[in-house]
Amino acid sequence: MARVLTPRAEDFPRWYQDVIAKAQLADNGPVRGTMVIRPTGYAIWERMQAEMDDRIKAAGAENAYFPLFIPESYLRREAEHVEGFSPELAVVTHGGGKQLAEPVVVRPTSETVIGEFMAKWVDSYRDLPLLLNQWANVVRWELRPRVFLRTSEFLWQEGHTAHATDADARAYARKILHEVYEDFMVGVLGIPVLVGRKTAGERFAGATNTYTLEGMMGDGKALQLGTSHELGQNFARAFDITYSSATGSQEHAWTTSWGTSTRMLGGLIMCHGDDNGLRVPPRLAPVQAYVMIVKDGDGVREAAAKLRDALRDAGVRVGFDDRVDTPFGRRAVDAELKGYPVRVEVGPRDLAAGNAVVVRRTDGSKTPVAVPDVVSRVLSALEADQQALHDEALALRTSRTVEVSTLADAIEASSTGWARVPWSQVGSAGEAEANGKGVTVRCLVRADGSVPDSEDEPDLVAILARAY
Amino acid sequence: MARVLTPRAEDFPRWYQDVIAKAQLADNGPVRGTMVIRPTGYAIWERMQAEMDDRIKAAGAENAYFPLFIPESYLRREAEHVEGFSPELAVVTHGGGKQLAEPVVVRPTSETVIGEFMAKWVDSYRDLPLLLNQWANVVRWELRPRVFLRTSEFLWQEGHTAHATDADARAYARKILHEVYEDFMVGVLGIPVLVGRKTAGERFAGATNTYTLEGMMGDGKALQLGTSHELGQNFARAFDITYSSATGSQEHAWTTSWGTSTRMLGGLIMCHGDDNGLRVPPRLAPVQAYVMIVKDGDGVREAAAKLRDALRDAGVRVGFDDRVDTPFGRRAVDAELKGYPVRVEVGPRDLAAGNAVVVRRTDGSKTPVAVPDVVSRVLSALEADQQALHDEALALRTSRTVEVSTLADAIEASSTGWARVPWSQVGSAGEAEANGKGVTVRCLVRADGSVPDSEDEPDLVAILARAY
Repeated sequence: MARVLTPRAEDFPRWYQDVIAKAQLADNGPVRGTMVIRPTGYAIWERMQAEMDDRIKAAGAENAYFPLFIPESYLRREAEHVEGFSPELAVVTHGGGKQLAEPVVVRPTSETVIGEFMAKWVDSYRDLPLLLNQWANVVRWELRPRVFLRTSEFLWQEGHTAHATDADARAYARKILHEVYEDFMVGVLGIPVLVGRKTAGERFAGATNTYTLEGMMGDGKALQLGTSHELGQNFARAFDITYSSATGSQEHAWTTSWGTSTRMLGGLIMCHGDDNGLRVPPRLAPVQAYVMIVKDGDGVREAAAKLRDALRDAGVRVGFDDRVDTPFGRRAVDAELKGYPVRVEVGPRDLAAGNAVVVRRTDGSKTPVAVPDVVSRVLSALEADQQALHDEALALRTSRTVEVSTLADAIEASSTGWARVPWSQVGSAGEAEANGKGVTVRCLVRADGSVPDSEDEPDLVAILARAY
Repeated sequence: MARVLTPRAEDFPRWYQDVIAKAQLADNGPVRGTMVIRPTGYAIWERMQAEMDDRIKAAGAENAYFPLFIPESYLRREAEHVEGFSPELAVVTHGGGKQLAEPVVVRPTSETVIGEFMAKWVDSYRDLPLLLNQWANVVRWELRPRVFLRTSEFLWQEGHTAHATDADARAYARKILHEVYEDFMVGVLGIPVLVGRKTAGERFAGATNTYTLEGMMGDGKALQLGTSHELGQNFARAFDITYSSATGSQEHAWTTSWGTSTRMLGGLIMCHGDDNGLRVPPRLAPVQAYVMIVKDGDGVREAAAKLRDALRDAGVRVGFDDRVDTPFGRRAVDAELKGYPVRVEVGPRDLAAGNAVVVRRTDGSKTPVAVPDVVSRVLSALEADQQALHDEALALRTSRTVEVSTLADAIEASSTGWARVPWSQVGSAGEAEANGKGVTVRCLVRADGSVPDSEDEPDLVAILARAY
């Protein structure tokens, strides 16, 4: 059989591009750096959205929609923010056939425009906390684009909240970090993310503190999968988000913002994919069980349709493939590429023996199963393989993470995985040195793995790695 | 009580703006013509999306996502298309700090960029039909913006399909028209839309045929709520969407496109709203039953919480208001403004008599109901009021539609409602005359109400009206 994908071990970046193309997840758009998300990829994104949206709403935030176009002047109101985003802006200078009096930027993120409306809507402490989220596209001009990982336009959710106190803002930024992002990434994406605090040098432009969730990819590099920021009173001052307190005084609010994006699709591929293509964790998968007719024969269609319906009735998301005029081998390869967790293959020979074949994408096992047992076998496979993918990723992370005691060793170790090193051995000078060699401090954690309140706490551990 | 809204009869446009502001549905954005959709409005949009998305998927289309930015040159490939959209384009000339070699436009609609990818993806007749949909924002610069109805940026779904034959394309454009759009608008939005065919003068730029769904608003004007287009081979030729047929010949595909947008939120307000605010049809409503604690008292909180849970268990979408430190009257006015179909008011006095008060937004009735009967009473009210809102809108349309036999009478009648007039009495010359007086031909229908295949069929009826 012709090789479908470049093997991962041979050329990881090429393997990544191959999976995206062959599994029909995405294409490059005509304007440099943009992407087309094809139905197979978009269906996964919709499942990510649904799972995340449930958790965001459970955390009390409400969805809203703010404009794509932001007056250029808004960005300039927060000095660090404009400095961080200026190089990446797309600027609209003409609208409706005329040059605009003030150019508008296409949102790279929405702190500024949302800040403007928070100021309008917040009056008294009774209006706080104000908990908003939006699902939207944003634009950040990319010089070295890469589908899903760095694209000039991407899809995301961005949460923006305002609080009466610093403590309340911090608690909410952490609630999102753990109860929404970590819960989703570990429990649904199956990626054992490391949760920590960014150094001052790696913070979001305009934040006082950035929390991050970092996943290890199949090549040992790190991918930032989501961030949650405390913005202090920076944006509240810039946009005049004030409230009258219970005692009647006028106070600036404390704000947060937090986001995850279609970049998670890149993480999914690079964390769980193998040489046969994508592997989608069952809880995430738009198609959990893929019922395939191998070829026509006595009772085959009826048996396959019955299995499809029985699986659906059991709450499984089912795909159905009866395209018998396409060779079965080609369809099976395609199903592997797309990473459906379980295939149920129904053909005349096995059916004559009362069986269908249950194929598990995670370990590649193929087992003839008596037709009446197929549903329960599929259900247990979905449950087990959700865990198996997570555990495999965790095992990789464990095996590719080393504990070192000097910066030099940490930089050295970053060529194959992650290095844990005392933050006291790095500091901002060490961080700059590492950056010069293409290595970054992904985050700081406490010795017990919990998330620090400050980078000045004693005994912090820095995680150094190369990153996407 | 101070007047909350301008009465509809006094100033309909002002009433419309008042409802949007007071029910906190939306705000104007900082860039002229853009809007902020606030949580109350966005929750309704999410329900519209969910209901529409189910129907779109049932019709076989798959969701995907195409880039926001389109090379300017793409639009020029279809002559009528560029002519139609050029005056409304927003143009990005700078990206990443540099002037772009070729300016890019912010999509006003995506036929062109999707056409480019259809050409890549379609090879043989086996790849057809190709049925795609996307949920996205689009930009059309508006000189006279009006929230929800005409905004420079709006949210919508746009479907794009390619077919092997003209007949198949037509059948699919009609399937979407009836099974997705009409079914949703009549059955969920509760708007008795008139479904017909646009005249050549009112067609989408680049289409060979446009179907439309027109709703009558509370002031007798028409609002176009959705359109479905046959694009013939226009875009297939411009973007070279070809396929090899079963006999091996190379053929151009036939394409369609179809869209509905946040404009439906404007239609919802103007069709069902009254002098107390919005009225949301129960099937659409994000909050169907709003349980309110009138004031605290013996067992009130427990009884209200029990009712909330019982309603939820019965499948009702429930809101809960226990903000007893805000005066009840103000909360009740707010609930009316937001149009929750049913309120369940729980207070100490009624509860002592074993009752809660069920208030129906549609007719304003307030009925004490024994607590154990509340759930069934709410369920029957939701069912009845879905129908009642539809019937009320239909009665208005019937009473405000007149049958006339001359163009002059039709134009005259359009000042208060819709006029039905033989198309033979209008024609393209009559249409131009009507347009000069602010009246448009909304659509053409057959005498039996069905949708014509051509505007040259005999005995067609034209519907003339003023429109949003």
